Amino acid sequence: MLKVKRLDFKTGGPDVVVLDDSTAWKLGVRPKDRVKILWKDKEITAIVNIAERFPRNIVGLFRDIWERYDIKDWEEVDIEVLEKPLAADYIRKKLDGKRLKRKEIEEIVRAINEDELSDMDISAFVVSQYIRGMSLDEIAYLVEAMVDVGQRLELSHYPILDKHSLGGIPGNKVTMIIVPLITSLGYVMPKTSSRAITSASGTADAMEVLANVSFSLDEIKEIVNKVGGCIVWGGSLNLAPVDDKLINVEKVLNIDPVSQMIASIMAKKLSVGATHLVLDFPIGPEAKVRNRLEATRLKRMFLGIARRLKMEVSVVYTSGYQPIGNGVGPLLSAKDALMVLEGSGPEDLRNKALKLAENLLKLLNIKADLKEMLEKGEALRKMKEIIEAQGGDPRIISEDLQPYEHEFTYTSPKNGRVVYISNHALNELARVAGAPFDEGAGIYLHKKVGEKVRKEEPLFTIYARNDAKLKRAVKQVVLRKPVVVK
Amino acid sequence: MLKVKRLDFKTGGPDVVVLDDSTAWKLGVRPKDRVKILWKDKEITAIVNIAERFPRNIVGLFRDIWERYDIKDWEEVDIEVLEKPLAADYIRKKLDGKRLKRKEIEEIVRAINEDELSDMDISAFVVSQYIRGMSLDEIAYLVEAMVDVGQRLELSHYPILDKHSLGGIPGNKVTMIIVPLITSLGYVMPKTSSRAITSASGTADAMEVLANVSFSLDEIKEIVNKVGGCIVWGGSLNLAPVDDKLINVEKVLNIDPVSQMIASIMAKKLSVGATHLVLDFPIGPEAKVRNRLEATRLKRMFLGIARRLKMEVSVVYTSGYQPIGNGVGPLLSAKDALMVLEGSGPEDLRNKALKLAENLLKLLNIKADLKEMLEKGEALRKMKEIIEAQGGDPRIISEDLQPYEHEFTYTSPKNGRVVYISNHALNELARVAGAPFDEGAGIYLHKKVGEKVRKEEPLFTIYARNDAKLKRAVKQVVLRKPVVVK
Repeated sequence: MLKVKRLDFKTGGPDVVVLDDSTAWKLGVRPKDRVKILWKDKEITAIVNIAERFPRNIVGLFRDIWERYDIKDWEEVDIEVLEKPLAADYIRKKLDGKRLKRKEIEEIVRAINEDELSDMDISAFVVSQYIRGMSLDEIAYLVEAMVDVGQRLELSHYPILDKHSLGGIPGNKVTMIIVPLITSLGYVMPKTSSRAITSASGTADAMEVLANVSFSLDEIKEIVNKVGGCIVWGGSLNLAPVDDKLINVEKVLNIDPVSQMIASIMAKKLSVGATHLVLDFPIGPEAKVRNRLEATRLKRMFLGIARRLKMEVSVVYTSGYQPIGNGVGPLLSAKDALMVLEGSGPEDLRNKALKLAENLLKLLNIKADLKEMLEKGEALRKMKEIIEAQGGDPRIISEDLQPYEHEFTYTSPKNGRVVYISNHALNELARVAGAPFDEGAGIYLHKKVGEKVRKEEPLFTIYARNDAKLKRAVKQVVLRKPVVVK
Repeated sequence: MLKVKRLDFKTGGPDVVVLDDSTAWKLGVRPKDRVKILWKDKEITAIVNIAERFPRNIVGLFRDIWERYDIKDWEEVDIEVLEKPLAADYIRKKLDGKRLKRKEIEEIVRAINEDELSDMDISAFVVSQYIRGMSLDEIAYLVEAMVDVGQRLELSHYPILDKHSLGGIPGNKVTMIIVPLITSLGYVMPKTSSRAITSASGTADAMEVLANVSFSLDEIKEIVNKVGGCIVWGGSLNLAPVDDKLINVEKVLNIDPVSQMIASIMAKKLSVGATHLVLDFPIGPEAKVRNRLEATRLKRMFLGIARRLKMEVSVVYTSGYQPIGNGVGPLLSAKDALMVLEGSGPEDLRNKALKLAENLLKLLNIKADLKEMLEKGEALRKMKEIIEAQGGDPRIISEDLQPYEHEFTYTSPKNGRVVYISNHALNELARVAGAPFDEGAGIYLHKKVGEKVRKEEPLFTIYARNDAKLKRAVKQVVLRKPVVVK
């Protein structure tokens, strides 16, 4: 016989009841199970909290419940365990190696979105994708379901252009050149970017050196309607929020199933209404895509899903052997990008940005002399408009951007040639130096792969906010050997 | 630049710091990450709580921390994300289909035991076992590691006997006959049993009708030293506690990897020091073991692991096509068992108990006329000793055990023979009727498979604590068809 005991505290969240350990066992109730409490002709649904040393055969009700229902102490009640949501069955089906139907994936996404599944269930879903893989249909269903439960950027323009880099390359700031270049031609490009997750600087971190990047969807709409494009942080927009929950689990487990990676990217693009997308695949031993074979497999998958989503996608293979440009870290990245827009700056960065922008326009059957546009300063003018629209100071020039003064320059131990630069090591170094949180922290590469270097000529400089961080980063260099001269 | 803000509440648990969403992103910190907070020459380790609408670039410290360290508001600090425990890498290794070494499994078990892994990680470990399987060596390592981090029942006797049924069959109360039978011969049998998890009554639930079943390890030791055996609930003993955590995850995911099932059973046995074990494999379409082929595979695994653990194990195949005895539910099960000990009771129950007990003795090369022991009332006398030692009333007789008075009897729709009884349906019915929580609730089978039945002769009776529950159970009968007559 179960009896009620009113507890004198509130959860503020979902309704919770407390049961003692052995009472719960007897009832077949597990922690976090959803149960129905039945008494007289009434019932409530609540989540179970299991406590040791709680009295037996007692259901503890939090204040939230008993204030609402006016249920008395020692009232006799029954408990029924509610069935798990259907989504749990579908996840098990996937674990068993079977394919999921559209309705089933929609149900999983709905249940994740409405917090009906535990972290354990979501973990099982991610792992099942990792081990069992997903078909193109399944991935496309997942994308559409994730977009459906989230917010969307509703623009009335056509076409809506977008770009995405698969990542793994430090200092990839091509977005800050491509967006102003494309929008200066009159096209619409509402670019949402991520912050650094494991790298030393995401595009949103670099852009934040020049302007705000956190906006609501309405504000973004206003900015895009005004200047044609934006470079903002996508993280707080509630675009495909289920994707964020899945990514959190992936980070904890440190796995990144290909299907979820593709779905994640495409969901963010679909959420902003992208119709034409250029995908940058940097290929290199320390990039996300290791080699041509992997690239071909991935490309086929992306194009297959794009077809299902009716999005025009162009895939461009680029070099992923070393950083793009010379700066790693938010400020140094922004400086590189601004320099290119100003007509100087690293050549590899300029060329890569031009190549991606050309491929994007090719999807629309448009030929434009982008190089000339860049040289004439059209992109720079547009960038200043964007900076201003995002609340930054449009008068900024690359000269204004100076890294922290705590610096240490590594020089070459011998005459020779730079034969290898480790992306991982550079990211790690820049992070230890304080990037991306300390925006002026990072690394500046004086030499890139293939360049000749003399003994004691500078190879790279580390910048940090204080000496403690600089020292920690300097220590790492010996361990990680970011630049190899032979 | 990060600054401290002291928050005016306590966690009581592990140290927690609060970060706002976008600050956390910038730092590369995820919810529940473990971080180091560094200031001046000091540091603390804490778990991260991520909050929306918390001020940016602020680290909120709970009272537990700032009282201990006397850190001031607005103190400048740095944050470092701590590496995940090695165990997370080993789980990923298993996800990738590789075999784990002893040290690696020990590390996973240690990390689970010390709460260093998240629910998501544990879920991934369970799923990896489910999909990838485990070698016999891996399972044996897992058993030993789980036993090592838990409590053990330390008895000085040899041999120590034990039995286990794989389950799935309602009304399996053979333990309550085997333990007194074996201990009446002078052997030691410290039996820990489970409660009903998904069934209508576990052995611990049935035994609880007659005596207490919740004891500490010291109390159990005392009982066993006094009367030679016990039948207690194993759930609160902290035997192989990691196993309980894994089972919780399995329940949530509704999967039961073979490797974990075997490890779980063997760990509980090893924890009580069992040297000789008889394993009951009920085989039937609705039992845990579906068919002979599966049984042979499982048997080979159990014997292989037993060899590694230096335990003598005998596997007995039994019928799993229908309940053992006539009663389903705690009281009706206890009544069946008591009747057998008293010399009456269901024949199938008596025969099964004798068969298992004989096989257990065979492991010791002992022949004893167990049937005679039972008939002479030796086992009943011992059972009364055990009941008394466990705080029950030894004068109890089966007649005293009467189910609830709210009852409904189903009769046969025609003349014929009982051709099928559904284990699942009976469990479900008995649970809806209130078992195992309402001890006098359950089902009594008047006819078993193979028996002739006339039209309108009783097939089974449902008992419940009140009419509402009885009605709900009666409704289920039509849906679930527990007994089929042809």
